Amino acid sequence: MNRDHYDAFLARVREIGQIDSAAQLLDWDSETYMPAKGLAVRAEQIATLARLSHERLIDPSLRDLIEKLDGECDDEAAETNIREARRLAARASRVPPDLVERIARVSTQAKESWQQARKNSNFERFQPHLEQLIDLRRQFADAIGYKGEPYDALLDEYEPGMTTAEVTRLFATLRGPLADFVQAIAEAPRRPDTSILKRHYPKQTQRLWCRQMAQAIGFDFDGGRIDESAHPFCSGAGPGDVRLTTRYQENFFPAAMFGILHEAGHGLYEQGLPEDHLFVPRGQAVSLGIHESQSRLWENFVGRSRPFWERFYPQCRIAFHDALGDVSLDDFYFAINAVSPSLIRVEADEVTYNLHIILRFEIERDLIAGKLEARDVPAAWNDKMEALVGIRPENDANGCLQDIHWSMGGFGYFPTYALGNLYAAQFYAKAQQDMPDLTDQLGHGDFAPLLEWLRDNIHRHGQHFRAGELVQRVTGRALSIEPFLDYVSDKFAPLYGLDA
Amino acid sequence: MNRDHYDAFLARVREIGQIDSAAQLLDWDSETYMPAKGLAVRAEQIATLARLSHERLIDPSLRDLIEKLDGECDDEAAETNIREARRLAARASRVPPDLVERIARVSTQAKESWQQARKNSNFERFQPHLEQLIDLRRQFADAIGYKGEPYDALLDEYEPGMTTAEVTRLFATLRGPLADFVQAIAEAPRRPDTSILKRHYPKQTQRLWCRQMAQAIGFDFDGGRIDESAHPFCSGAGPGDVRLTTRYQENFFPAAMFGILHEAGHGLYEQGLPEDHLFVPRGQAVSLGIHESQSRLWENFVGRSRPFWERFYPQCRIAFHDALGDVSLDDFYFAINAVSPSLIRVEADEVTYNLHIILRFEIERDLIAGKLEARDVPAAWNDKMEALVGIRPENDANGCLQDIHWSMGGFGYFPTYALGNLYAAQFYAKAQQDMPDLTDQLGHGDFAPLLEWLRDNIHRHGQHFRAGELVQRVTGRALSIEPFLDYVSDKFAPLYGLDA
Repeated sequence: MNRDHYDAFLARVREIGQIDSAAQLLDWDSETYMPAKGLAVRAEQIATLARLSHERLIDPSLRDLIEKLDGECDDEAAETNIREARRLAARASRVPPDLVERIARVSTQAKESWQQARKNSNFERFQPHLEQLIDLRRQFADAIGYKGEPYDALLDEYEPGMTTAEVTRLFATLRGPLADFVQAIAEAPRRPDTSILKRHYPKQTQRLWCRQMAQAIGFDFDGGRIDESAHPFCSGAGPGDVRLTTRYQENFFPAAMFGILHEAGHGLYEQGLPEDHLFVPRGQAVSLGIHESQSRLWENFVGRSRPFWERFYPQCRIAFHDALGDVSLDDFYFAINAVSPSLIRVEADEVTYNLHIILRFEIERDLIAGKLEARDVPAAWNDKMEALVGIRPENDANGCLQDIHWSMGGFGYFPTYALGNLYAAQFYAKAQQDMPDLTDQLGHGDFAPLLEWLRDNIHRHGQHFRAGELVQRVTGRALSIEPFLDYVSDKFAPLYGLDA
Repeated sequence: MNRDHYDAFLARVREIGQIDSAAQLLDWDSETYMPAKGLAVRAEQIATLARLSHERLIDPSLRDLIEKLDGECDDEAAETNIREARRLAARASRVPPDLVERIARVSTQAKESWQQARKNSNFERFQPHLEQLIDLRRQFADAIGYKGEPYDALLDEYEPGMTTAEVTRLFATLRGPLADFVQAIAEAPRRPDTSILKRHYPKQTQRLWCRQMAQAIGFDFDGGRIDESAHPFCSGAGPGDVRLTTRYQENFFPAAMFGILHEAGHGLYEQGLPEDHLFVPRGQAVSLGIHESQSRLWENFVGRSRPFWERFYPQCRIAFHDALGDVSLDDFYFAINAVSPSLIRVEADEVTYNLHIILRFEIERDLIAGKLEARDVPAAWNDKMEALVGIRPENDANGCLQDIHWSMGGFGYFPTYALGNLYAAQFYAKAQQDMPDLTDQLGHGDFAPLLEWLRDNIHRHGQHFRAGELVQRVTGRALSIEPFLDYVSDKFAPLYGLDA
């Protein structure tokens, strides 16, 4: 491999990464500390950085360098970096600038129209914008190209290597058993008392408590922080600077508690990425799905587990004595694991959650494939919701207008949430197999071995493996729905007094 | 004027401004919220943005556009933008990239060596780096070019249009009368009791109080905020997003109180710049000196005035009742206006302050002119300190090693602090003349008319006028030392029981 070519290539790719990470900090700031009047300027700054990054990605001299290096790689990091840079540059180069510009413009209008439509539960208002975005995203998919169907090109942006056919297959097999299980729970003899979670939990105590929980699972506050924002997220500029955000609800304990474990799960992934490959693919996360697997693993598999609370509930009860003084561990544990059919995705429990995603995936896949018209979305949504979850939205605000994604043209994003849950279950089952003491360790608040396992098996590889390869390599088998179904059945059947 | 050329020109200049303002936010974040381990990455991000900005500034196609537009301007905003872009592009283009790179590298080393040298009060350790920086800055000045002497080219970076000869003339006339006045105060019959300012002022109360003071003088918190940092500063991305920082000392009330009035003074200037010309010279501050005039005007001319405290002291005494319950307005007012010869610039009172600057200016001017050797700096410093302020540093840590500026190669920066005081005095005298009720207004906490006067006379012009023109235009005369000498004499002679 010609070292000069590779160094020149790396400098360009690093520069793109640095510009992107600067834009990410500007975005973090706009969600946390930016004064209200700063919005217009900030949007311009971020747009300028995005343009600079895009110009560099489609620069023919980067393509020339990639071509010169083609097939010459003699180390695995170079191979990863070149492979991913080639993929991203190709995607970016194939889309005509005026299409990019039209998508940005229509998305801005669509986002505004969606906000109004949701407020008034008036789908008709949003419909023409949705139609435009579907059309533009189809053109986008055609420009990028695909093997199977247009939706593949969109999915590939968030979950490289995953196909529509594979998601369809996974979700089709998951759909029935999961809906049946949710139905069985809905009819179960036992019910948790979730009102205990809606008592008064003082914000200042929550803030200290949640910070301690993030620290307990291994989040490094010398290389990260927690701030408040309306919509929780995790954003990172390398392992040394990872920003989590949350919101505290004084009358709903789980919001910040599990919100922070979720974001800290993302954060632990970012803090575990290889520092030697900062700003380049070898040092970056595999995909949205794999990222979500890390957040869900810490939020649910660890954070909603019985051993976790055996360790922390006594302290938690002291910290929130007014709310929890009269609540037993059993009742608390049952309450934080309440499963109940509900309309809103972001409030869904870990069993029902995937059904919300399956519904969205089926609709957006059919929209992009031309098998469903935008005007038919409300009916399709409501029918599916009734079939899958057993309840029907009383209006579109609580139905097909609830999420922002489509208004930003983000078709292909939703499936990664459910894939994250499936990856998490399969990784976690393997971790349990590799570490017979794992449950005991959680019960002692000793999370280091699990974090070490994740670091070693997942984090340190950056984008060396695609998601599918990574799962195969770590767990010895392709992604499957069984570990997830086993997990929910093993955990929730006894809790709800169901026959296994 | 060819509109297409001008639009293309403006797009480029705006882009540079956007990149610079993004870098500024990254810098703000690194001083306020960035976790410790984020430092290395942040330095890289900022360096990348600085390089992108610089590349654009020296881009020959920008120069071509400027040449095409030369002499064609038909509106004043265009004239200002083209004039300043030409100046900045010329400066940037004349300096060879390897010199820029060497200055950056040597500065990094020098800053580290200065920190060590100051810690151990060991000038010899810093001396070789200082020698290198003087040499590099001379080369830098030669590359840029100058009419009078090399120092002009350095000064011009911070105070465009100002000359070494003019600063020398102003400071030479200010030097004697000011040193005499400080001497007279040192021997005055009356002394304030400053120990009252070193009582306990709870941080949380200071935070609320200072925020209220910033708001009182007109700082808009919908377009700005206050955070904490080790070194207070003001940074802005246009009128809608101005960030002030401060530090709270529980045992020294003036630190945050006047620190925030100072930074809010900078902030009011930023918030008053014309929003229509965001990111381009017509919408940016004139110079460091004019910026400093705004901060000093609010900090000292308003914030340390008797009417200000007649209005706010009763509330202040309630807020800090444990510290101020037994302190009269007279004693408080005298204490916050204590004048006493001291060694450290950043702790100096408003009378002594300019002497610290004159000393630094004389030394750095002579260093750049080759009339003083780096090794002779400590002796020159100590002699001048004794002659001007009447005391001699016991070591170099409290002498020539106290400030960071030279370790960053920032020769030419210091004079702007004193120029700021002179501009402030001259502006304020004119404001008093234009508004006979000004003192009354301050006494009623009504700062809107003064702010309006500053907006109208200074802020809204952006860089339309150079500092010298602006002073001439606003006050009807060139910058002079008299308003400042009159101000200190009128204020401090009665306070210290001196004959006027």
